[in-house]
Amino acid sequence: MKFEKISELTTNRLSIYLRCLDEIAATGGKTVSSGGLAERFHLNSAQIRKDLAYFGEFGVRGVGYYVDTLRDHLTKILGLNREHRLGIIGAGRLGSALAAYHGFGETSFKVSALFDTNPKKIGKKIGDVEVFDIKSFATIVKRDKIEVAVIAVPAEHAHQALELVVKSGIKAVMNFAPVALKTPSGVKLKTVDLTSKLQSLSFFLAQRNRKRTGSVKPKAKSRRK
Amino acid sequence: MKFEKISELTTNRLSIYLRCLDEIAATGGKTVSSGGLAERFHLNSAQIRKDLAYFGEFGVRGVGYYVDTLRDHLTKILGLNREHRLGIIGAGRLGSALAAYHGFGETSFKVSALFDTNPKKIGKKIGDVEVFDIKSFATIVKRDKIEVAVIAVPAEHAHQALELVVKSGIKAVMNFAPVALKTPSGVKLKTVDLTSKLQSLSFFLAQRNRKRTGSVKPKAKSRRK
Repeated sequence: MKFEKISELTTNRLSIYLRCLDEIAATGGKTVSSGGLAERFHLNSAQIRKDLAYFGEFGVRGVGYYVDTLRDHLTKILGLNREHRLGIIGAGRLGSALAAYHGFGETSFKVSALFDTNPKKIGKKIGDVEVFDIKSFATIVKRDKIEVAVIAVPAEHAHQALELVVKSGIKAVMNFAPVALKTPSGVKLKTVDLTSKLQSLSFFLAQRNRKRTGSVKPKAKSRRK
Repeated sequence: MKFEKISELTTNRLSIYLRCLDEIAATGGKTVSSGGLAERFHLNSAQIRKDLAYFGEFGVRGVGYYVDTLRDHLTKILGLNREHRLGIIGAGRLGSALAAYHGFGETSFKVSALFDTNPKKIGKKIGDVEVFDIKSFATIVKRDKIEVAVIAVPAEHAHQALELVVKSGIKAVMNFAPVALKTPSGVKLKTVDLTSKLQSLSFFLAQRNRKRTGSVKPKAKSRRK
């Protein structure tokens, strides 16, 4: 049951390997060695071998990996060999943008429905995606076989949205609200925190400035206050 | 020079503390202890004390932290006490969505310009933001004092976009293209990889399925192939 021990980092890397293989396949490559993969995409060849060995013996001595076979395997391992339907909670700017975001379409994810509380939005379409009343969430999830919930509501409504999601039986959640959510065991949550990423950039810029202007005495400064 | 040793994780936590303090301030709270902060927002109180001690002695024995004072300090530490201008490369769906995303407006970040190669897009406005020819990137960056570049182009153009950014002298980059980029030292890069996050959710769902159906024999399976 090796699958159970797989870390988040490993799945992230598998996802990266798959994209690299897609690129190689697109340019007509048939086989690739771990070394070749590493060099071309700035990866670590030992890590590649280790990660892939985890799932079976994909490599062939003297040949490396067969690109198509390995792509098929990774696609299956990552569960990308079938479509996953997404339901987006919150038809505001971010939710609408995500509904229209073609990046989802290129993968095996399909935005199936938007949900909102605003009567002005309910019933409308954003691109091809209809906005439903949040009250019908559980019904639509069941009807449309939605497997992944995307939370795109303001921070103060995120907990409530998550509750609804968990109650509906959905097991995979992507949260865009700038708030730390806790899911019960058996429900997987991934958070995309744009605000915190931006703030870490501004911290970097401020730090750079402090260094350049020599005003780097936070301790002394705060004591003076 | 304690600032130099600060990890990514610490700045992420500072960002979270600041949001918690905002919430406390919004509900009229004047002081808060590390324990209170931890309990209310599911954080670790020892970690809070450690992180904040790093930047000075903010706490007052028997009182805890003064919410407003600590907010001011964190705002300054994170460099959020002044506006940062963003330039978005790629006026496609994602770039346009980001330009219109009001989440940026609520913070100290302001989208100042979009850039694209498509003549049909150049000169148009998306919300309040003008789309410029990518050729004028360096000029507009200088003119508008853009400090943060957002890369929102397809994967195959991301390296090229980054080159342009680095040449222009920008030191902070946020990359949305699903590709691993390398920046020279002195340039900070944060990546938001939606595809990889989604794939890790689909992996989780597939793994769950494999467990339930009992078809968890990846090693054997791949050998048969």
